[in-house]
Amino acid sequence: MDDGRPLQQAARLACLCVVIHAPEDLRLDEREVEPLGPGQVRVRVGYGGICGSDLHYFHQGGFGTVRIKRPMTLGHEVAGTVAEVAGDVTRVRPGDRVAVNPSRPCGRCRYCLEGLPNQCLDMRFYGSAMRDPHVEGAFRTLLTCDAVQCETVAAHVPLQHAALAEPFSVGLHGVARAGSLLGKKVLVSGCGPIGALAVAAARVHGAAEITAVDLTDETLAVARAMGAHRTINVAADPGWVARFSGDKGTFDVMLECSGNERALRAGLEVMRPRGIVVQLGLGGDVSLPQNVVVAKELSVCGSFRFHAEFALAVRLINEGRVDMRPMITGAFPVRQAREAFELAGDRKRAMKMLLAFDEAAG
Amino acid sequence: MDDGRPLQQAARLACLCVVIHAPEDLRLDEREVEPLGPGQVRVRVGYGGICGSDLHYFHQGGFGTVRIKRPMTLGHEVAGTVAEVAGDVTRVRPGDRVAVNPSRPCGRCRYCLEGLPNQCLDMRFYGSAMRDPHVEGAFRTLLTCDAVQCETVAAHVPLQHAALAEPFSVGLHGVARAGSLLGKKVLVSGCGPIGALAVAAARVHGAAEITAVDLTDETLAVARAMGAHRTINVAADPGWVARFSGDKGTFDVMLECSGNERALRAGLEVMRPRGIVVQLGLGGDVSLPQNVVVAKELSVCGSFRFHAEFALAVRLINEGRVDMRPMITGAFPVRQAREAFELAGDRKRAMKMLLAFDEAAG
Amino acid sequence: MDDGRPLQQAARLACLCVVIHAPEDLRLDEREVEPLGPGQVRVRVGYGGICGSDLHYFHQGGFGTVRIKRPMTLGHEVAGTVAEVAGDVTRVRPGDRVAVNPSRPCGRCRYCLEGLPNQCLDMRFYGSAMRDPHVEGAFRTLLTCDAVQCETVAAHVPLQHAALAEPFSVGLHGVARAGSLLGKKVLVSGCGPIGALAVAAARVHGAAEITAVDLTDETLAVARAMGAHRTINVAADPGWVARFSGDKGTFDVMLECSGNERALRAGLEVMRPRGIVVQLGLGGDVSLPQNVVVAKELSVCGSFRFHAEFALAVRLINEGRVDMRPMITGAFPVRQAREAFELAGDRKRAMKMLLAFDEAAG
Amino acid sequence: MDDGRPLQQAARLACLCVVIHAPEDLRLDEREVEPLGPGQVRVRVGYGGICGSDLHYFHQGGFGTVRIKRPMTLGHEVAGTVAEVAGDVTRVRPGDRVAVNPSRPCGRCRYCLEGLPNQCLDMRFYGSAMRDPHVEGAFRTLLTCDAVQCETVAAHVPLQHAALAEPFSVGLHGVARAGSLLGKKVLVSGCGPIGALAVAAARVHGAAEITAVDLTDETLAVARAMGAHRTINVAADPGWVARFSGDKGTFDVMLECSGNERALRAGLEVMRPRGIVVQLGLGGDVSLPQNVVVAKELSVCGSFRFHAEFALAVRLINEGRVDMRPMITGAFPVRQAREAFELAGDRKRAMKMLLAFDEAAG
Repeated sequence: MDDGRPLQQAARLACLCVVIHAPEDLRLDEREVEPLGPGQVRVRVGYGGICGSDLHYFHQGGFGTVRIKRPMTLGHEVAGTVAEVAGDVTRVRPGDRVAVNPSRPCGRCRYCLEGLPNQCLDMRFYGSAMRDPHVEGAFRTLLTCDAVQCETVAAHVPLQHAALAEPFSVGLHGVARAGSLLGKKVLVSGCGPIGALAVAAARVHGAAEITAVDLTDETLAVARAMGAHRTINVAADPGWVARFSGDKGTFDVMLECSGNERALRAGLEVMRPRGIVVQLGLGGDVSLPQNVVVAKELSVCGSFRFHAEFALAVRLINEGRVDMRPMITGAFPVRQAREAFELAGDRKRAMKMLLAFDEAAG
Repeated sequence: MDDGRPLQQAARLACLCVVIHAPEDLRLDEREVEPLGPGQVRVRVGYGGICGSDLHYFHQGGFGTVRIKRPMTLGHEVAGTVAEVAGDVTRVRPGDRVAVNPSRPCGRCRYCLEGLPNQCLDMRFYGSAMRDPHVEGAFRTLLTCDAVQCETVAAHVPLQHAALAEPFSVGLHGVARAGSLLGKKVLVSGCGPIGALAVAAARVHGAAEITAVDLTDETLAVARAMGAHRTINVAADPGWVARFSGDKGTFDVMLECSGNERALRAGLEVMRPRGIVVQLGLGGDVSLPQNVVVAKELSVCGSFRFHAEFALAVRLINEGRVDMRPMITGAFPVRQAREAFELAGDRKRAMKMLLAFDEAAG
Repeated sequence: MDDGRPLQQAARLACLCVVIHAPEDLRLDEREVEPLGPGQVRVRVGYGGICGSDLHYFHQGGFGTVRIKRPMTLGHEVAGTVAEVAGDVTRVRPGDRVAVNPSRPCGRCRYCLEGLPNQCLDMRFYGSAMRDPHVEGAFRTLLTCDAVQCETVAAHVPLQHAALAEPFSVGLHGVARAGSLLGKKVLVSGCGPIGALAVAAARVHGAAEITAVDLTDETLAVARAMGAHRTINVAADPGWVARFSGDKGTFDVMLECSGNERALRAGLEVMRPRGIVVQLGLGGDVSLPQNVVVAKELSVCGSFRFHAEFALAVRLINEGRVDMRPMITGAFPVRQAREAFELAGDRKRAMKMLLAFDEAAG
Repeated sequence: MDDGRPLQQAARLACLCVVIHAPEDLRLDEREVEPLGPGQVRVRVGYGGICGSDLHYFHQGGFGTVRIKRPMTLGHEVAGTVAEVAGDVTRVRPGDRVAVNPSRPCGRCRYCLEGLPNQCLDMRFYGSAMRDPHVEGAFRTLLTCDAVQCETVAAHVPLQHAALAEPFSVGLHGVARAGSLLGKKVLVSGCGPIGALAVAAARVHGAAEITAVDLTDETLAVARAMGAHRTINVAADPGWVARFSGDKGTFDVMLECSGNERALRAGLEVMRPRGIVVQLGLGGDVSLPQNVVVAKELSVCGSFRFHAEFALAVRLINEGRVDMRPMITGAFPVRQAREAFELAGDRKRAMKMLLAFDEAAG
């Protein structure tokens, strides 16, 4: 904190943050708000969605080789209200309700200049310990960000829905990786938040038929509400693979959102020749039957985060082309963040859990 | 056999075949030549290349779930001279030297009608135990086949070279799966016959730079002769991955011809974002770091056999756009088939071993 | 006619056909129904939509170099009820309500085997004078066709809507040619039946934003009802090009359905670099500013008829994913075919005019 | 000129430039050399190729709406020797022989950030009057440019050949727009410098068969030397279209380099369904048979300049994968620039004319 500042101003710049200190050690810390630079805005965060990576930091302090080395504010799925804008900002105005894109590519590296900003060599993505110093997250009552990160939310859209623009963007990017879905039979495996939103993304983009598979009926019900034509609980119906693997297979596109090896292997059996398997979400090692990939000439394609899809997500939500209501389990006040995190990990009870920041800031 | 035929004609229709009876039980059997139907031709086989799948049948009686259930003539890489043609054939004439496409799709199933004949639901591919009754192979002194299977070999091209059109087609199909190589850095892993011919296919199609990796210097020397700009013996140079993995990786395209898990995993490390990994050849289960595939948005694409590429392979050989000489280790008379098969499996001594059928038929 | 047949059966096989004899000479002729061969069905036609090519035959006796040389039954947009099926047919049963695909590729030529059946070298398309003898059309009370041409219509779907499956297929094929519309701004120019259905096709497949342009408010109102986000009457608003041509242009995809040179030229001005212009419908010569195509690296792509899109069209109509009501101007009894044809040509009064065949057959 | 500078330094910074003042008014003017900024180098120009656009400025003062408004140095195809480098430059060193990329995109606009730098909204391309103030060209004895514009030329490559890297890049970009040429039959129409180099680009990238057409035997001879399998003088052989238009056409890809309407129209007749016509070079209005584009579902794609292809061009020249000797008509001393420009416009006598700058600078 800049000691020279008058107390009053310093007080105005403090805010509450949801900070992970160590596995299971989640705290509500008061931190200083970053000063407002050129092209920047200050957002009073309304709601923030808890993501799988937030849960990994909460429970294990990270995932794979990514581990927190010092306390870090979590969160990257937020929407709120613009409180203040720098003098040069015209994109938004105070009072505008916005969803905040947590992705901040450098705009100068070779991948940015190739049109692949999600592969930026100097990416700063909210609430990520991939680099050190870590990039602080957006679970905070006041957030200073670039105006270009803000997408305006329509008046009739609840901020809770707008907070889902980020995971919806992930689903949209997965669909973008698959190419046109015109006439295509799509299999979505794993119906957590990303999978359910991938269903919605595929539905909006014209998939002829969407089949969603998962191990729990509760998530499948959400997948159906988000647009799946058919859902299969593969735990209860182990014969499903045989039904869809005739004549070399059925599905043109698979959106693999479970990260589960068995789900992926089953999917390869039911894909038709030249089918495209899009893998979303970061998993570990998986054992694949390479002869199936070869003999059916499948393509297994990674999908990582998103870029232009964020603005598209907000647009589709604004226009009512996707209904986020089935996705939202509930919103807990930020002071009950721990309870919200606990519940968010229970797939039978929770799809998307939100934190409500407003009252804390009040 | 058509009993009505005079004995003399029946005698004329016998030929020598290289038949696998059981693992390690390879015999030179006399078998009847199939009668000449409409649209068909009879080819006096000159040379036949021994392929990896032939070796699998020879040593283990098959691979994976594919096993010989009864004696089967091996071989699917042959070239010879047209001896006789049915009355309706205009494509070739007796005396023409031809390479024979071992791939016979049905032309009526859904995949044939989608332009994917290599995915035919009723494929009959020479020398394959994938279906039962097995499809007999082409290692025989006289072969009856459809005229459309024959591609004319130019006068100046040795039949030994023409016999390599089939494995070259496999490499070409792999390159076709990768899309345009203009400006692309290509990694070829595994420099057996398919890998070395994949190098040639990539070179002909304009790869900016081809790096070939293998474990033996002998195969790498062939890869270099076939067009690799750079070769790396990864056994001798384990630091190669580190050199090529900076800034998320170097290579745009990988043609994976080893079927080896370690080779594939190393390749994923050195691929750049959005790179395309084409997997050729049928392997078993492989363990993949799915997080690398996702984070770099790689595409792992299977490549299975070929179709239109066969005619292209013959054309490129005819025009001298690929020189097959470095590929050919030698040709053994068919009566020494066992010795040829033994040698063909030794990667330090043999690249492509051929069987010479001419004298046997003489 | 097979003379050996008893008179009674022959009488049963007669039906009424809408036949063009010469320009403006449209007659309702009694013609014999084709016998029912293997794999075939007989359909009692319910409704038939009048297409632009029908109007060309009606008014000018053809278009371009395509001219009727003898009387020809018109029509290729029909739906009806299966009356009878050959013994080997399992796809449909008597009583099933079906839309009939007028496209009958040979399944054997090079383009059919490349997966391009709409480019078939031996195509027989209903009601077309492109070949001689002409291919008779489907504006008839009884139609004998192949079972594979029939797509089952859901119980709740009016046959009038099902009759629009064919022009909707044309729109869907245009969208398929454009590739994925995810995040794309789409311009549809010309809002006759094909244009309005192209709007619907683009909307179903997720276009981020659809702008429809035409010269008449009536057709634009239909385009809006079919899913356009924005409509522009370019006759009333000549400044529209300037508004959308900044920074090299706005639209990612153009579906050009007017066949009008001025519309195409205006479209090229408002397309952004690397934009895709899909040209639907057969026009004559057009003068293009090739320097614009080059400098912005636009792609102008033809779209001709459809194939797999027909089944998709019926599916989308069956599932209520497109609402055909705004498309239908009305249905005239077939005995008033001339009046229907006259009205169908008036773009201010008619979008899609249908002929009702049921009562005539009664 | 900065008056404050000492005379000696100013003298050192003067150089000779080939400047167009008005149509047919070409002068050799002494101009000041731009100061050396960070990241920049000074190149002693060796050779410069005269391009079609240079000829347009020379004869007509421009083309289309692009007209010189004040004197402008011409030229954008140059190679030379590095004379001096800024302190921060590591890419090249004094004495290095380099080809200079005349394309300088901004790196910040939306198209640059989409990976389309050749569509940059703020492009500065040497010797172009597209913007005002015009961008000065590179026909000068001393050129100050960014180090990133320089590609090192191999020791054994004559600078005359390296000067052709720019037009070769144009051909390579056209081939890149066409996608993979594996197995493709390519038609190149117009065999001026761009066409002949497009032949070379297609040959290097594996076109199965290249047919070049033109009106003059002299250019066709060069096309053959650059890799065309077949050449046709369409003035002498008007029946060529009929020979190649059977079964809907022959060619998969057309590289249209003539800008001539008749050539384009003939090409559309001989293209096969789904063929890709790449239009290179800026022409005026052309009248197209839109019904052919539609019925055969052709794609007519613009190709504008190049970007990454420049480095590739130099690489291919360095490695001897393309031989530039047949391209070069001769090199005139810069003091005979007018004579060189006159000759360059005579297609029967000149393919690529070069200006030699070295002695002038001596």
